[in-house]
Amino acid sequence: MIKAGIVGATGYTGQELLRLLIKHPQVSLQAITSRGEAGKPVASLFPNLRGHLELNFVVPEPALLKSCDVVFFATPNGTAMTMVPELLESGVKVVDLSADFRIKDAALWSQWYGMEHACPELLDEAVYGLPELNREATRKARILANPGCYPTAVQLGFLPLVKNNLVDTDRLIADCKSGVSGAGRKADIGILLCETSESMKAYSINGHRHLPEISQGLNTVSAKKVGLTFMPHLMPMIRGIQASLYATLINQNTDLQSLFEDFYKDEPFVDVLEQGLSPDTRSVRGTNKLQLAVCRPQGGDTVVVLAAEDNLVKGAAGQAVQNMNIMFGLTEIMGLELIAALP
Amino acid sequence: MIKAGIVGATGYTGQELLRLLIKHPQVSLQAITSRGEAGKPVASLFPNLRGHLELNFVVPEPALLKSCDVVFFATPNGTAMTMVPELLESGVKVVDLSADFRIKDAALWSQWYGMEHACPELLDEAVYGLPELNREATRKARILANPGCYPTAVQLGFLPLVKNNLVDTDRLIADCKSGVSGAGRKADIGILLCETSESMKAYSINGHRHLPEISQGLNTVSAKKVGLTFMPHLMPMIRGIQASLYATLINQNTDLQSLFEDFYKDEPFVDVLEQGLSPDTRSVRGTNKLQLAVCRPQGGDTVVVLAAEDNLVKGAAGQAVQNMNIMFGLTEIMGLELIAALP
Amino acid sequence: MIKAGIVGATGYTGQELLRLLIKHPQVSLQAITSRGEAGKPVASLFPNLRGHLELNFVVPEPALLKSCDVVFFATPNGTAMTMVPELLESGVKVVDLSADFRIKDAALWSQWYGMEHACPELLDEAVYGLPELNREATRKARILANPGCYPTAVQLGFLPLVKNNLVDTDRLIADCKSGVSGAGRKADIGILLCETSESMKAYSINGHRHLPEISQGLNTVSAKKVGLTFMPHLMPMIRGIQASLYATLINQNTDLQSLFEDFYKDEPFVDVLEQGLSPDTRSVRGTNKLQLAVCRPQGGDTVVVLAAEDNLVKGAAGQAVQNMNIMFGLTEIMGLELIAALP
Amino acid sequence: MIKAGIVGATGYTGQELLRLLIKHPQVSLQAITSRGEAGKPVASLFPNLRGHLELNFVVPEPALLKSCDVVFFATPNGTAMTMVPELLESGVKVVDLSADFRIKDAALWSQWYGMEHACPELLDEAVYGLPELNREATRKARILANPGCYPTAVQLGFLPLVKNNLVDTDRLIADCKSGVSGAGRKADIGILLCETSESMKAYSINGHRHLPEISQGLNTVSAKKVGLTFMPHLMPMIRGIQASLYATLINQNTDLQSLFEDFYKDEPFVDVLEQGLSPDTRSVRGTNKLQLAVCRPQGGDTVVVLAAEDNLVKGAAGQAVQNMNIMFGLTEIMGLELIAALP
Repeated sequence: MIKAGIVGATGYTGQELLRLLIKHPQVSLQAITSRGEAGKPVASLFPNLRGHLELNFVVPEPALLKSCDVVFFATPNGTAMTMVPELLESGVKVVDLSADFRIKDAALWSQWYGMEHACPELLDEAVYGLPELNREATRKARILANPGCYPTAVQLGFLPLVKNNLVDTDRLIADCKSGVSGAGRKADIGILLCETSESMKAYSINGHRHLPEISQGLNTVSAKKVGLTFMPHLMPMIRGIQASLYATLINQNTDLQSLFEDFYKDEPFVDVLEQGLSPDTRSVRGTNKLQLAVCRPQGGDTVVVLAAEDNLVKGAAGQAVQNMNIMFGLTEIMGLELIAALP
Repeated sequence: MIKAGIVGATGYTGQELLRLLIKHPQVSLQAITSRGEAGKPVASLFPNLRGHLELNFVVPEPALLKSCDVVFFATPNGTAMTMVPELLESGVKVVDLSADFRIKDAALWSQWYGMEHACPELLDEAVYGLPELNREATRKARILANPGCYPTAVQLGFLPLVKNNLVDTDRLIADCKSGVSGAGRKADIGILLCETSESMKAYSINGHRHLPEISQGLNTVSAKKVGLTFMPHLMPMIRGIQASLYATLINQNTDLQSLFEDFYKDEPFVDVLEQGLSPDTRSVRGTNKLQLAVCRPQGGDTVVVLAAEDNLVKGAAGQAVQNMNIMFGLTEIMGLELIAALP
Repeated sequence: MIKAGIVGATGYTGQELLRLLIKHPQVSLQAITSRGEAGKPVASLFPNLRGHLELNFVVPEPALLKSCDVVFFATPNGTAMTMVPELLESGVKVVDLSADFRIKDAALWSQWYGMEHACPELLDEAVYGLPELNREATRKARILANPGCYPTAVQLGFLPLVKNNLVDTDRLIADCKSGVSGAGRKADIGILLCETSESMKAYSINGHRHLPEISQGLNTVSAKKVGLTFMPHLMPMIRGIQASLYATLINQNTDLQSLFEDFYKDEPFVDVLEQGLSPDTRSVRGTNKLQLAVCRPQGGDTVVVLAAEDNLVKGAAGQAVQNMNIMFGLTEIMGLELIAALP
Repeated sequence: MIKAGIVGATGYTGQELLRLLIKHPQVSLQAITSRGEAGKPVASLFPNLRGHLELNFVVPEPALLKSCDVVFFATPNGTAMTMVPELLESGVKVVDLSADFRIKDAALWSQWYGMEHACPELLDEAVYGLPELNREATRKARILANPGCYPTAVQLGFLPLVKNNLVDTDRLIADCKSGVSGAGRKADIGILLCETSESMKAYSINGHRHLPEISQGLNTVSAKKVGLTFMPHLMPMIRGIQASLYATLINQNTDLQSLFEDFYKDEPFVDVLEQGLSPDTRSVRGTNKLQLAVCRPQGGDTVVVLAAEDNLVKGAAGQAVQNMNIMFGLTEIMGLELIAALP
């Protein structure tokens, strides 16, 4: 059994990690930390866990965390980077669900995240954990930078087109829509039910932190640096990301449907729908799947890729478990064979 | 492996049965019927099942159903009763999620359901499958009448009080609130998103079909016939039932908290919360649990029981699987150890 | 023109007052205060007011407020009581939407609101502004205590029964459901969309502050002190209160439908529905109407009253404007002839 | 007073017309038709109208409609075209909220709407009623083709850019999101609350009927035929359209903010937000306003226009009233000075 700890388990990605790891056949939860809730049973804060988990929250003591085989960080940005070096030295593997290790360029990271990086020397080593892109590197990773929710959907949607040089990468457009849980579990008027229900809008229109992350990922497979317009929107719902991706085809002779099906045919968590279908977020809710469709409206030279995922699962905690499975040599889908509950 | 069939799998309780039975370690799905969708892959109608189920819908042929060990009916009222006798003769066990076998009195049934009963001679044999009330009879049942969603919550909430003669049973009040999925998956203007979202109301105020079912159940444990006011309300949400039950105490010396905890201490799916807590529907969403709380506001002689369940699971498909487990001698919780996904 | 000020206009009742007063033909808005937002255009915080209002927020200066004919307090509890005496001395009339002047008994108020009252000597003079109960007193009021949202619905529903001695007042039950806006506009995790959508629950089960307010009001028309069980529930929607009220009839010969219709026949904002109908909250959303229905399920001795209102209008800002109209001798419905937008 | 009739008032655009016309100071409602509901009070179907409207539904008799000055069609596509010629001959003006007269090319119309046009000879005369584009022609119109909901938002968003030759019109992209009311009030499983809440998706991905309407409108101001990719998405909410429009700038020296502000400075219902803001649908809910923002993410050559409107008001009934005001020489904003209710 893999001994696992979770630092910062009171947020939404932390909750989701709990749900998944409690049922994971090869994981034993050792430490679930929260400074604010230390001493209380985890199930007293999350009544859905009554009868499933006996642990109490504890303060994030290094000694305790060092006894784990893997520690997940589900903390706000800026926390993991202060604790990771010590854990690594003790031989603990780290899966960081925050953004601390996602950007290779420390200066770029500081520019978007508004703070100095605490251990820029580790950025190179950290593996960006999009398994469909970096599976091999992940197997040997000590620090796994788990991708952001939008970056997962956008990269997986554009990858087959960009890697195969099929589109004009100067002007990629990603129109993305997210449920409110993407903003986290924090006391903030802007995400009250009364402020977000029965309404929607684009937000962060002057630049969202996931932009450099997406560009960095696409650049690794693109012939030249991509030019991306990324526009996130807030949806009146809890979970789910839908991304509509637009690009101009420079080669119109490719059978896009076959291309996508082939590209992802061995991927357990990327599901390419039949021509004409459109993925909806509820069909993947609570699961680690990303569903994709590709089309060319009116047969023109604009290609549209439609993607749907659960921002808290494939976009966060589920992908983190998938990465842990890879890092520890387990079957990649272990603990992740989930069916969305409809309706 | 138990060979199972589902008649009428295109509704919401049918969908939920599919989700549960696909993952049940002792069940093999044999036949999933739908006259309207026969021939199509089940997963083409329900994209959440892509990769989890290879079966096509079939027409409900008796021969096919007779090859099953158990057949679940997730059909509109009035269908199961026309098919059950033939199945029973062939030795197939039946779990009926519709109302056809819930009421022992055929005349009363006809009055509330507006049709003649097709096999009144079987009503006596049918076991009303609320496991917490009828577990022993269920073990030997050939026809299992799976309880309605409201009746499950209301009976489990009132049982400890009524069975122990603690309340005035002349005037029980059940104020119940249900998500819209309780109305089923049918083309009906009244349950459109635009008609039900951002609003709520009481409905069926002149009498709801679950009233005689609840009364019948409580009468089996009550010293005298109960007098029940049952008022259902429609909530702007998909899943979940919350019931607030009111009664006048005739014996105020009982420790109600201990009473409830003791009453349900061996029940795997009834969870009594600590004093002062109130169950919310999301904490049991997608699971077979019913959470209960009991209180006496301002220490008066009115007792209030609060109950929360998922109307499609403990209130329908989950309880059906629980009943099947009992009928076939399996561990009662098999396939039902589910954790609600928060948020 | 009546010169009006609003203290604390950044909350939901303040927003709603703005919407109503901007369009009121006899009101001129003079001062809209907010310490936090002083100096900013009101329309920069509330984009729905762009083009409808040119004012900036100002700090709540006494001099400015004294130049008003009426000042509305849409502040948290405990604020109005510190400012009202000075305004009264200057001849300004006050409509307080908070709870500061609702309870006549200062000790009882302190017990429920957890602070000393700053001007208990004014409690007697303050008029409890439920127009259907206190219209005459309201005409001469200097301090108007605007009722709470739940108390408005519950009192108007029980009034015809209690005043006419038709029910056992020892055991009144009010099962009430509210949209999340009832909790106000504040940074609180419990009212995030992700915490309240797709779920519901009872809350404040050990006692809600509106209990003594309702009891006080019903006691003024009841032959003896009422015994009330009041159970509030949180609904996954923005606006609306639905109340289901239960009582035992002690006189079963009254035609309840006629009683209710007669009782409210001259009331512009109480609408009694035809027998068999049930009010839904969306039909009164955004309006000052309360819709009522009365029934006796299965012809028994339990009477059920169903009430629906918009908690921010008839339950707050609309009733405040109605009260202002009465206090200033205007037509009572002025500025309040609103139609709910369906769907 | 203008005598007005509404044909087909049981749908959502019909309901919204009722709400607006009842309060319109220069309109007297004469006839509200519905074959299915004839004889019943309109307020019995729509309880929000209780006390506001005394009329009963009537069958759509030509004689009755001919006594009107204006008849609004809020009917499914294909109905208005069969009744309009006779009304015109009688001197009645027509505002058609369906799609029957929106497309000038009868063959193109038939291709998208799947039926022959009943009076192609009138298509030329019909005025496409986007006031910001066609105000002068509207003054003299006998048949007013009221624009679709998406076309209103998309055209008003692109107009300043296309008319001023600032963007590459070969590849315009309109990513549009609509509340469910856009699908109308009809018994259809796909728009049930349980099928659309807590989810979202793109739909009509192979071509939506509003595509030729938008293209036709933009072509009237474009130097060459536009190439448009139009992708509609279904949102889990009742009302509101948000459109994110993308184009490549061919002239990067224009101050886009000033351009948009100048372009719409005299328009009462188009509101250009300050730089950096993003319109949300709730701020215009229930009103006839369209709010716009324009930006250039990361200062690149992609321009993004963000638009928000209420699909049932500026996207349907409100614009119809605005057009009626113009056709009858009234103040254009009469009856439309509405403030959105927040929250």
